[in-house]
Amino acid sequence: MQDLRINEQRLWDTLMEMGEIGGTEKGGCNRLAGTDLDKQARDLFVAWCEACGCTVDVDKIGNIFARRPGKYNDLPAVGTGSHLDTQPTGGKFDGVFGVLSGVEVLRTIHENNIETPTAMEFSVWTNEEGSRFQPAMQGSGTYVGRFDLETELNKTDVNGIRLGDELERIGYLGDMELGSRNMGAFFEAHIEQGPILEDEEKAIGIVRLGQGIRWYNVEVVGRPSHSGTTPMHLRKDAMLTAAAIVSEMNAIALRHENGLGTVGFMQVWPNSRNTIPGNVKFSADLRNPRPDVLLKMHEELIAYCEKIAEEHGLDVNLDPFWYFAPVEFNASDDVKAATEKLGYSHMDIYAGAGHDACYMADLVPTGMIFTPCLNGISHNEAEYSSPEECAAGANVLLHTMLEASERIAKEHQQHSNKRRKNAGCEF
Amino acid sequence: MQDLRINEQRLWDTLMEMGEIGGTEKGGCNRLAGTDLDKQARDLFVAWCEACGCTVDVDKIGNIFARRPGKYNDLPAVGTGSHLDTQPTGGKFDGVFGVLSGVEVLRTIHENNIETPTAMEFSVWTNEEGSRFQPAMQGSGTYVGRFDLETELNKTDVNGIRLGDELERIGYLGDMELGSRNMGAFFEAHIEQGPILEDEEKAIGIVRLGQGIRWYNVEVVGRPSHSGTTPMHLRKDAMLTAAAIVSEMNAIALRHENGLGTVGFMQVWPNSRNTIPGNVKFSADLRNPRPDVLLKMHEELIAYCEKIAEEHGLDVNLDPFWYFAPVEFNASDDVKAATEKLGYSHMDIYAGAGHDACYMADLVPTGMIFTPCLNGISHNEAEYSSPEECAAGANVLLHTMLEASERIAKEHQQHSNKRRKNAGCEF
Repeated sequence: MQDLRINEQRLWDTLMEMGEIGGTEKGGCNRLAGTDLDKQARDLFVAWCEACGCTVDVDKIGNIFARRPGKYNDLPAVGTGSHLDTQPTGGKFDGVFGVLSGVEVLRTIHENNIETPTAMEFSVWTNEEGSRFQPAMQGSGTYVGRFDLETELNKTDVNGIRLGDELERIGYLGDMELGSRNMGAFFEAHIEQGPILEDEEKAIGIVRLGQGIRWYNVEVVGRPSHSGTTPMHLRKDAMLTAAAIVSEMNAIALRHENGLGTVGFMQVWPNSRNTIPGNVKFSADLRNPRPDVLLKMHEELIAYCEKIAEEHGLDVNLDPFWYFAPVEFNASDDVKAATEKLGYSHMDIYAGAGHDACYMADLVPTGMIFTPCLNGISHNEAEYSSPEECAAGANVLLHTMLEASERIAKEHQQHSNKRRKNAGCEF
Repeated sequence: MQDLRINEQRLWDTLMEMGEIGGTEKGGCNRLAGTDLDKQARDLFVAWCEACGCTVDVDKIGNIFARRPGKYNDLPAVGTGSHLDTQPTGGKFDGVFGVLSGVEVLRTIHENNIETPTAMEFSVWTNEEGSRFQPAMQGSGTYVGRFDLETELNKTDVNGIRLGDELERIGYLGDMELGSRNMGAFFEAHIEQGPILEDEEKAIGIVRLGQGIRWYNVEVVGRPSHSGTTPMHLRKDAMLTAAAIVSEMNAIALRHENGLGTVGFMQVWPNSRNTIPGNVKFSADLRNPRPDVLLKMHEELIAYCEKIAEEHGLDVNLDPFWYFAPVEFNASDDVKAATEKLGYSHMDIYAGAGHDACYMADLVPTGMIFTPCLNGISHNEAEYSSPEECAAGANVLLHTMLEASERIAKEHQQHSNKRRKNAGCEF
């Protein structure tokens, strides 16, 4: 068991085969949730799992669960999974790498006739990207009970087509109850989608936390006027105020350990070269793995917006419309043990983006395995991880799942022994 | 003559009548150059001028010159004029007030049977706004020789329609040579399009200078990456750099007397909430009435862009694509003398925007008369000046033109006497 390794070439070939479904000229992938291409990808996954002896269930929001039995099938299973849908100009790895690492783990234990202590489950979550239907992580979020099933099935794309209708049309509107799988641990392998592992030259990131996120819509309301005829002291320049807040977002992030601050979107009105902007709308995104620190960053942003509005003599409207609390990955020690056993270079890391595992952590001890991606680029056709990098992640997933299965069986046995022993005492 | 005044109500009615041609629901005006509406406005102007005994000529770029003869018709005439075209959501006063103040001056001297020493000329310049065809001040700029005639006639609108074809279609492609009028002085009355006169509670602005303008296209090239997965020290955030330059534009303006600095236009790519901007393009606009100071501001902007690019580790491309040198209005003493004679409150002021008079100053001593406009608002359907404010400007224009005509005749007479005297000496 210690020497068991996945098949690097087979994993790579599987990634490339899946990447042809919706493959783009630039080498990326365009496979939106609920489309015919999504169906083709799901069918391929199901076929691959069934070929390794799995039974397959689909739940009421279209999430797929393939199960390979183990020795003790009443015990909670060890699960893994991610998503097969992509961004419209996405890559071949985001999400797909997690699903196909699972398939590779399944093939490896199957071809070696390994009877795992518990069952193993391999899942595909519906619409993680949130590109065609919002929100992102829709399948996992609905599964764990964060979203209402009917509301989500009624969500429509830009053409008014319902998610529920699309799932039915492609044959993936199942009848399995949400949240009903008996799982004892869940793991998701994923490309990092950031530059840290590459920069630190580490093969594996052990994801300890999913950081907290606070999103804002900011609007600065000034007064539009002529750039040539309005002296500086009579201006209400919304652009100048917006620029000050952009700089402060950066300063807030730098003042706090592991803080992130970003203004990614901006819309200027009337957006004319010789008119002082009367209105600037922009997004603000603050992140921190610690909820108390994130709250402090939030308070600093509010205070700064009040101060600058007063100083500049115009209005700043700050709408804090979304808060995603930090997630603790309680099964990350399993990942660390497996990584160290295999001898890969590694570091603890935060999940900066949202993942299906962030929601699964609501229900079950969860862990994530990050692998490097070229230049940290993701959500882009240029997204790339090497065969070696993918293989390292899949090997860690394999041994993490095996360890966790052993651990769950052992814990259960101890628990049973204790019960038996206690029962003995009573009698 | 000293007691001569224009007719306030008639001027107002004329403004309102002209404002109906292309009038918008919100009380503004949409009368683009070369359209049927432009033709209607021009026809009305021509009819009004002919009714006061003017002869009318049209030059090769469509500028209209209406001439009322004086006592000495070989002497250089005194001219006034502005434009009848508007912005797509423009007001009733920008440009139109200057043209119709001229018509009101014409009517006033005509109904009082005044024989002015020199001829008086009333002009309408083609496409001052630059909305439908670029550049702005196209008619006056071509008349004075700044632009090439054929190039300008070949300019097309967004539908590919040539300016020359439109002028011919509406009957205003004339055969008069450019730059061929014999003028001794030119005056333009115009709403200020800024808040200074209102703020200082002055009725008349005596425009001493048209300030210099330097326009730039700026592009910051960073690296797009995920806002949740890219730590602060590994970012190349084009938005952050752009914000620093916006703040510095303001600082440069404040460091120099009468300096102005504006970023009115910005385009962010990919402009997505959770992506650090990889590219930000924006405009920069620096103005100062003194060319040496404007050059210093220009040099400070260049130096700052180089410094910030170095500090932030990304590229800043600064393209200084347009320079408009400051304009001296050498006939502004005529405006001041008339204003003081009439007893209006007044102040010296700069022209912040471009005007036809800025180009006419290339050929002839020129002056501008500014009047207040509500809240300094222009290029907007809400643009407004009161009947009294308009009347004050037209009265100043009347007496400025009368004074200038007297002055020109007197100077010519002295010159003739001197010639005669000199001739006498020789013989």
